[in-house]
Amino acid sequence: MLERIKPAPSERKRLQEVSAALITRIEKLAEDCGLNLKVMLVGSAARGTWLAGDYDLDIFLGVGVEDDLEKALQLARRISPDHREKYAEHPYVQARIDGFEVDLVPCYLVDDAAHLRSAVDRTPFHNRYVMQRIAGLEDEVLLLKQFMKGTGVYGSELKVGGFSGYLAELLVLCYGSFAAVIEAASLWKPGLRLDLEGLGRVEQADPLVMVDPVDPERNVAAALTLNRMLQFALAARTFMTRPDLEFFFSNPPAPLSDREIEALMEERGTLPLLIEFAAPDVVEDVLYPQLRKAESSVKALLERKGFSILRSDVISYGNRAALLLEMEVWRLSPACRREGPPVWQADHITRFLAAHSQILSGPYIKGGRVVVEEKRRYAQAADLLAAELASLSLGRHISASIRSGYKIYAGKELLAIKDDGYRIFLAEYYRARCIRQDAEKP
Amino acid sequence: MLERIKPAPSERKRLQEVSAALITRIEKLAEDCGLNLKVMLVGSAARGTWLAGDYDLDIFLGVGVEDDLEKALQLARRISPDHREKYAEHPYVQARIDGFEVDLVPCYLVDDAAHLRSAVDRTPFHNRYVMQRIAGLEDEVLLLKQFMKGTGVYGSELKVGGFSGYLAELLVLCYGSFAAVIEAASLWKPGLRLDLEGLGRVEQADPLVMVDPVDPERNVAAALTLNRMLQFALAARTFMTRPDLEFFFSNPPAPLSDREIEALMEERGTLPLLIEFAAPDVVEDVLYPQLRKAESSVKALLERKGFSILRSDVISYGNRAALLLEMEVWRLSPACRREGPPVWQADHITRFLAAHSQILSGPYIKGGRVVVEEKRRYAQAADLLAAELASLSLGRHISASIRSGYKIYAGKELLAIKDDGYRIFLAEYYRARCIRQDAEKP
Repeated sequence: MLERIKPAPSERKRLQEVSAALITRIEKLAEDCGLNLKVMLVGSAARGTWLAGDYDLDIFLGVGVEDDLEKALQLARRISPDHREKYAEHPYVQARIDGFEVDLVPCYLVDDAAHLRSAVDRTPFHNRYVMQRIAGLEDEVLLLKQFMKGTGVYGSELKVGGFSGYLAELLVLCYGSFAAVIEAASLWKPGLRLDLEGLGRVEQADPLVMVDPVDPERNVAAALTLNRMLQFALAARTFMTRPDLEFFFSNPPAPLSDREIEALMEERGTLPLLIEFAAPDVVEDVLYPQLRKAESSVKALLERKGFSILRSDVISYGNRAALLLEMEVWRLSPACRREGPPVWQADHITRFLAAHSQILSGPYIKGGRVVVEEKRRYAQAADLLAAELASLSLGRHISASIRSGYKIYAGKELLAIKDDGYRIFLAEYYRARCIRQDAEKP
Repeated sequence: MLERIKPAPSERKRLQEVSAALITRIEKLAEDCGLNLKVMLVGSAARGTWLAGDYDLDIFLGVGVEDDLEKALQLARRISPDHREKYAEHPYVQARIDGFEVDLVPCYLVDDAAHLRSAVDRTPFHNRYVMQRIAGLEDEVLLLKQFMKGTGVYGSELKVGGFSGYLAELLVLCYGSFAAVIEAASLWKPGLRLDLEGLGRVEQADPLVMVDPVDPERNVAAALTLNRMLQFALAARTFMTRPDLEFFFSNPPAPLSDREIEALMEERGTLPLLIEFAAPDVVEDVLYPQLRKAESSVKALLERKGFSILRSDVISYGNRAALLLEMEVWRLSPACRREGPPVWQADHITRFLAAHSQILSGPYIKGGRVVVEEKRRYAQAADLLAAELASLSLGRHISASIRSGYKIYAGKELLAIKDDGYRIFLAEYYRARCIRQDAEKP
């Protein structure tokens, strides 16, 4: 197993050479322009916990707290012509250098992780903490990271809501080995608290709290969702019962063909509704929370009006984004009930009856209230969406995108979209298997 | 108005003659067989508060508390060959005599309404209380009773849940006139308490409490439902705004024709489901609570499984009875979601996954639980009913009747039943108008 995921000696050597040369070059450049810069290789490359085939380098450019980050950024732009400027809490530069993807991140050199100027200032402390303790456990970290990748829980970005590399490293430090992490995780429940240094002042609001050993008020697992935490726990339990290499390597499904989609629709008898629009030009960590917000607004609208949803999901592919709603009930009787005020509120009843004059049945009294039956405004879910989508609270960028145009695909109209990313998403959506189907079978 | 509802002098005279002769005859019979009997005309006939065309006589046969009701009953059977024996709390005899429907009710002569042997023993006290106070107000009672009939709230039997004649009389005594009752009722809210003698020891559990002046622990309005109380209040308010003779005379709708039913189904787009079976051979006060119980069990089943009901009702016609369910959602997608146990309950999850092996999607994790999607057992409401009706808790007599056979009519199949009572019921069901459509319009 380790053979497949551990970088070969040659790969290791090349990474060390490239990063050493790069650091020297940056230090030289800084010296040339009189900039007092501390250049640091951080992250998994620095700690020997990177997976084979992973060519990412994180290089931090530390300046004194009186200095200006802007100067470090200007310098970073000059390292390679093949670069893009990115933006997290602060701007940084992403460059391709000698086949590596290099993040050049300006940060402040603070004397204590409790005195941060910015979230990135914490990284050097993380790096130091792990490097001082991880020697001899690197392979355990590699196994754990690969297991997390294979079971779909790796990555702390908001789209995934899983485990960060740092969290995986701390788990190995906490339990002592990959096998020990798996054994412990197999029994995890929400409300778990891990605190390597026994310093924690984090309140238990998240399903898993891993107190940051360099900043005891911070939860390293803050981005981990309940479902990803438990997905890992269930995968660990299943792996203990039937260990298998498959756990380490997930096979993304093939894009669905038209025929496969039609067969799935036929079998399920649901009506998929896809609301498709231009993806706003923002990073995924901004896009996905908005997509989730839009998803929950749309679901709330549909359910408030009596429709029912089997499941839903969000996707971005190419320059498009979409909400998928799989409807369990998508058509209602034209006749519907409208409940009015309690009988003794004479003025309200007068207004209610005046506002509902085209009635089919009633007025009658039920539960002490006046009730009428009238024609429903939208008996089909798709009609309701078309009429009210634009007025929903969908998140800033998505609202803007929807206002400039969107399209609703219903049922077999979904076949009109041929994009492979979209067809893979559909395959994953319909499979919806976050744990193996035979999990825990005796 | 009064002309139409007040018995003519000739009608009044005839009632007096018939009842006097009947009482004399019964007293003679009792004397002949040595039975010490007090024969009393009670009810509206005795109090001069009966409506024109109402030929009911209530004659109570009072025996001493040491005596036996059975002897009085034997005597009652000999009054007329044209009689039926009925049963409320005790048996009594219903006979047709000279064009009148006469209830001959044995009761005990107790010395205080607080020392009843049976509920019917209270009636002579009611009679005495009203007769001592009603003189001069008889016409007001007639108007109120007729108004209650015309607006559909008269009758304390469980099928109606409305106002009894005694309650109407007490309301007139309480407020002083028909107009005063209407004016007061127009402002009624649930929680109202009326107590003519200021003796009440009744707890306020019912929407309207009228303390029984002859038995202060009893609520005369115990059978009045919230909706009938408020229906009367709303009718009173509307009548004050636009007084109209129509309030006193309801026009039962004509039986619906096939074409009319089809047009209503088309307009509403709902699916009516009718569950029809032999009416159990019990009185309406036993039958209707069971029909309501069956109705609510069936609704609960349908809603628990994801279907939705616009409205429902119950009916008995001829020797048949039926539940009508008007469906807002009567078909669901074949695919459905099944939520399993929380992820950390390993044993439960093993059993859950073993029990749900034919899955369409999943297992996945949602809200901390393992979830699968599988084929729904009954995607159509009618199929669910056919499969599970017999195992529901429907009330003793209805369960027995359903076990010996029933039929489900869906949509246009309802046209197969031609019975006039049923067709009138459908007309009333679809109209569902317990107050005038223009009620309270400015």
